[in-house]
Amino acid sequence: MARRRYLLAYDIADPARLRRVCNLMEDHGERLQYSVFLCDLSKAERAELEASVTEVMHLAEDSVVEIDLGEARNPATVRTWGRSRRLPDSGPQIV
Amino acid sequence: MARRRYLLAYDIADPARLRRVCNLMEDHGERLQYSVFLCDLSKAERAELEASVTEVMHLAEDSVVEIDLGEARNPATVRTWGRSRRLPDSGPQIV
Repeated sequence: MARRRYLLAYDIADPARLRRVCNLMEDHGERLQYSVFLCDLSKAERAELEASVTEVMHLAEDSVVEIDLGEARNPATVRTWGRSRRLPDSGPQIV
Repeated sequence: MARRRYLLAYDIADPARLRRVCNLMEDHGERLQYSVFLCDLSKAERAELEASVTEVMHLAEDSVVEIDLGEARNPATVRTWGRSRRLPDSGPQIV
């Protein structure tokens, strides 16, 4: 199944909602920074994650930014300045 | 001058360093989230910003993630779920 790599960064104003959004992200990708995840998702998985996350969010207070980094096998390059973090493999992930 | 659009996201462990890195980012781009900026930078400007920021950072504790989103006139699409933020124009910026 063709997956694309997405960068998802969130600002969640409430700690309980933050924890729930964070858990959803952890189920679908890999943490790059405190509030930044990389997720390799099919079209259906992306739609499902957006639906789950927006159900938790308060749309007036919270935000998630999504950037399509291209095909998961050949995504845009992520560079790290300073402390480096392991990036997700480009292969399929269990979601 | 040809600029590219970069997403820069930071995890800075110390409040004083955080403020300095934040000021540098604000001078070079536009805030998308609490710790995420979009910056349209020429090659020289990008190098200058990396040099300034890494001089402030403690490389063992802090990190900045940089993703090249392509030409500033035609960058990768940034989608927002929930509360939307104004994105930078693709035109030149005062840096």
